[in-house]
Amino acid sequence: EGKLIIFSVLSAKAIRDYIYTFVSRTNTCGELRSAHVGQKVTLYGWVQYQRQGLFLVLRDFHGLTQVIIPQDEVSGHSHVKELLSNAPVESVVRVTGTVSPRPLGQQNPKMPTGDIEVKAETAEILNSCKKLPFEIKDFIKKSEALRMQYRYLDLRSSRLQANLRLRSGVVMRMREYLCNLHGEGLLAGAKEFLVPSREAGKFYSLPQSPQQFKQLLMIGGLDRYFQVARCYRDEGSRPDRQPEFTQIDIEMSFVDQAGIQRLIEGLLQHSWPEDRGSIVTPFPSMTYEEALAEYGTDKPDTRFGMKIVDISDVLRGSNIHFVQNALSYPHGSIRAICIPQGMRYLTNKDLESLKESAKSQFNQEIMEIICRPDGSLKSLLTKFLGEKKQSELIQALNMQEDDVVLLAAGEHKQCSALGALRLLSADLLEAAGLTLRDPTAFHFLWVVDFPLFLPKAENPTELESAHHPFTAPHPSDASLLYSDPTKVRSQHYDLVLNGNEVGGGSIRIHSAEQQRFVLEKVLKEDSEVLSHLIEALEFGAPPHGGIALGLDRLISLIVDAPSIRDVIAFPKSFRGRDLMGNAPDYVTPEELEPYHIQVSWPLEEKEAKKN
Amino acid sequence: EGKLIIFSVLSAKAIRDYIYTFVSRTNTCGELRSAHVGQKVTLYGWVQYQRQGLFLVLRDFHGLTQVIIPQDEVSGHSHVKELLSNAPVESVVRVTGTVSPRPLGQQNPKMPTGDIEVKAETAEILNSCKKLPFEIKDFIKKSEALRMQYRYLDLRSSRLQANLRLRSGVVMRMREYLCNLHGEGLLAGAKEFLVPSREAGKFYSLPQSPQQFKQLLMIGGLDRYFQVARCYRDEGSRPDRQPEFTQIDIEMSFVDQAGIQRLIEGLLQHSWPEDRGSIVTPFPSMTYEEALAEYGTDKPDTRFGMKIVDISDVLRGSNIHFVQNALSYPHGSIRAICIPQGMRYLTNKDLESLKESAKSQFNQEIMEIICRPDGSLKSLLTKFLGEKKQSELIQALNMQEDDVVLLAAGEHKQCSALGALRLLSADLLEAAGLTLRDPTAFHFLWVVDFPLFLPKAENPTELESAHHPFTAPHPSDASLLYSDPTKVRSQHYDLVLNGNEVGGGSIRIHSAEQQRFVLEKVLKEDSEVLSHLIEALEFGAPPHGGIALGLDRLISLIVDAPSIRDVIAFPKSFRGRDLMGNAPDYVTPEELEPYHIQVSWPLEEKEAKKN
Repeated sequence: EGKLIIFSVLSAKAIRDYIYTFVSRTNTCGELRSAHVGQKVTLYGWVQYQRQGLFLVLRDFHGLTQVIIPQDEVSGHSHVKELLSNAPVESVVRVTGTVSPRPLGQQNPKMPTGDIEVKAETAEILNSCKKLPFEIKDFIKKSEALRMQYRYLDLRSSRLQANLRLRSGVVMRMREYLCNLHGEGLLAGAKEFLVPSREAGKFYSLPQSPQQFKQLLMIGGLDRYFQVARCYRDEGSRPDRQPEFTQIDIEMSFVDQAGIQRLIEGLLQHSWPEDRGSIVTPFPSMTYEEALAEYGTDKPDTRFGMKIVDISDVLRGSNIHFVQNALSYPHGSIRAICIPQGMRYLTNKDLESLKESAKSQFNQEIMEIICRPDGSLKSLLTKFLGEKKQSELIQALNMQEDDVVLLAAGEHKQCSALGALRLLSADLLEAAGLTLRDPTAFHFLWVVDFPLFLPKAENPTELESAHHPFTAPHPSDASLLYSDPTKVRSQHYDLVLNGNEVGGGSIRIHSAEQQRFVLEKVLKEDSEVLSHLIEALEFGAPPHGGIALGLDRLISLIVDAPSIRDVIAFPKSFRGRDLMGNAPDYVTPEELEPYHIQVSWPLEEKEAKKN
Repeated sequence: EGKLIIFSVLSAKAIRDYIYTFVSRTNTCGELRSAHVGQKVTLYGWVQYQRQGLFLVLRDFHGLTQVIIPQDEVSGHSHVKELLSNAPVESVVRVTGTVSPRPLGQQNPKMPTGDIEVKAETAEILNSCKKLPFEIKDFIKKSEALRMQYRYLDLRSSRLQANLRLRSGVVMRMREYLCNLHGEGLLAGAKEFLVPSREAGKFYSLPQSPQQFKQLLMIGGLDRYFQVARCYRDEGSRPDRQPEFTQIDIEMSFVDQAGIQRLIEGLLQHSWPEDRGSIVTPFPSMTYEEALAEYGTDKPDTRFGMKIVDISDVLRGSNIHFVQNALSYPHGSIRAICIPQGMRYLTNKDLESLKESAKSQFNQEIMEIICRPDGSLKSLLTKFLGEKKQSELIQALNMQEDDVVLLAAGEHKQCSALGALRLLSADLLEAAGLTLRDPTAFHFLWVVDFPLFLPKAENPTELESAHHPFTAPHPSDASLLYSDPTKVRSQHYDLVLNGNEVGGGSIRIHSAEQQRFVLEKVLKEDSEVLSHLIEALEFGAPPHGGIALGLDRLISLIVDAPSIRDVIAFPKSFRGRDLMGNAPDYVTPEELEPYHIQVSWPLEEKEAKKN
């Protein structure tokens, strides 16, 4: 049922053709029901298990079927019995037999084929399986490295098969939706992974994203383009990243931010798996500034509250030193989150660890306020606050009995700390049994109005692009570009799902003059490197914009997988290694010769090689 | 009309949403008809040309519309007139106006929108275009290098836009057909382009094809898989090859050769562009041996005759020295092709050049026989042949008056020479005005029963795989594998279209024992390299097989493009260079550092760098 969802585009006739015409089975192992009783069928599959020479369970990509091993003396049957009784688990067999009803009381309602069994008449072992290093169903308990090494066995698990099936279905429906766009066939520029060429000293690079090429397509007059693009990014050893990943890449001419947003909402609604509920459009939208102020992050998880509240006005004028001090700075403020039922669900140790993590990760002091069962507050602050201020505080933070408030003073940056504490305490509350986030809920959110430039971390007097230098300024801020670039908002937009960034894009600069100004005057970059793009803008570049969705992340959120490795058929390990094919691997100096490169061995390895 | 073909999957409503909802135009430039007269419309597009401030032609991806520039004194109109009269060609403009019928006699029946024009009321220049280095329509006359450098301008040509549109439509319909397969998300092994990793001395490699990974997917129990896979192949400087190319990659379990063939026939029928006629299935099939004997190649162009005929039996016993000599060898034979109307359409020079090319490329002597208008033969051979032999020869070769026969003696290898002469003389006949090959005909052909192994060119006593070492032997020849491997036919199949290989695949070996025997005993290869694949075969590998279609070549044949570069949005040049983005390019030693490699400069460049 649910599994057939991916066939939706094809007619029933085409589906039958597909599954049966090209192979010699008559049915899949997930298909037989009472209505098939009496039919002669041929099944192909793997031996899931076998019991005492009496029956076995056959498995294929579509399901399980119970096969009865013949026990009578009919000609040939003893051969079939011997074959099937001795076939090792996970061997591949063909079984031909007759569909029979299961004896009364032996039906299995949990199994779609649980009303029937197939009485084997002939059988063939197509491939025997040697002893497995572990049972398929136990795989999930094994180490990541072992599962990667035997990825093809892990792929036999119903969990991974379901993930890949869902991924394929979603992508197909995305293509349906986007199919009147044009321009398959790109792969393009950007920095990162280098590929030596046969010209000495010259390298190709693998695309991080087809950014420049999709812009050039628009300049080439192709109205719109989409691609399910394989991209490459060398991120060293960041955890749970893949050196290759897949994005749904889209670009359109004559479009504005709202147009792209409506397109993506329609796309996701069209391709959303039926069994995951429906999603409501349009998605809510929030500015970057609001997101930072209320959630302390540019990718808020809006499935639950606990928003950051500015309580500066409540505390202003109170005789508390750190409050006075913070409020004396231009952007100083006092902010807080309220942890519902914190006293009941969090231990003292939990609270200490929250405060410690704010200290160690954000260098941020945290003060706590507890709401006692009688409604009074307990805190180091209370003695400085009158009755009225306390009640204002309770109201501002909507505190209930047993709630815990975490409070932080600072200049804006305390929001990041509070945002992190918000997520950490949600995890702690849920671990203790309080349900905050519905695991079946999908909260999409647009985050907009990002700053166009940010101060460089290493030298805050210089600016860098918040996203990339092709992002267009917000129309209302275009003149600020020349007077006060730090204040310019951009036409960049991020799509956030349950607190994860699943997409991002922008309206691009289409004026050569503006692009040159951004590169040369604001970013002080050598525009020579991008001269071919600037030149292209001079030749009638249409206004255009686009977006890219991170397919791996999106699918992993839909199927609630802990890692994107669970939605990629052959992922690389944490450290970018292919443990099955053993990549990356050493190559001989002869193999490097046509590419005019040689390895620079680090000193210790050089020494080791000598000995 | 024809252009809407690619929208077939979407409803009319969805199409309208798609083209209009997300952008602020009301119509495309290819859409307006008499029925729209009186409507207020907003168009976006490029200025194709403009005449004397009176009218201009606006172009977008969908077509052309004539826009009338206002000449009256209505408020604002003089501003619009000034804007549109001065917009350089290829500038991007928005025009809002009213659809009007063209004055009587000024309709243009060759233009889909030729019955109407749009009277501009407001207009905006969205981006001005600087003077182009050449006119878009003249592009095709320019050098390949210039066209590559300004690919985004070349992409504005209707020819390239139509090619990419068709490609997108075909691929979408292929996906529709294949969409219940699974397993997006692969990229895999094989030799070739190396990617340095951050571990000293270790390299990834870019996939030539996902061969091993698709087999592992089958072993992982995923029934069938398809992917539109980007592949990479470093072929040095072979002409008209691309370092990156696209293949439709398919693998299935429990399938045989006929099953794969029927699948591909159904796939191509389903995805064939409607305006290119229909294709008939099943496709004809020919053995490798027949193809070599009758066409002198394993990818015969079956759109025309001129097959190679074995005339050994006719000439046997005749007193001709080179004939006697050839027939004295075990596989010696005399073979010939008959060029229809050769005397009328080919010059003496043509005939000489054909013979010279056989000599220079195949070291093959060619003798000619001409059929005179009176039906008698003219040749150096005739004096050795009696009346009867001559008439047998005429019959065997089906010679008509003015035909020219090219004859070659040898041991099999002369077939290659005759096959090449067959194609060369077809080109010459067509250049001279005789139509041999219908340019709208598509002749698909399966070539089957390839040998499994071939003697190595450099050492004929050793064998190598004719295709790859995973190809399964023909079931009837399986026992020969152990006794006489050179005689084993394989379960490899090629798909040929009009004399071009457009696909190839095979049933794979699924027995670990057979795979090990092939690698170790026949090919004498170190099976350690492939030990992970052999191990996987031991864990219950199902019988499986697959195929890959070369998408770029297929599309270029459908649209009759001279090069696959005409069906790829951003191809590399002949020498694998990206002339627009200037790749491959030099990188700094600092950029190479994380990858532990350095450039080995050839001596002269090192010297040059020093100076």
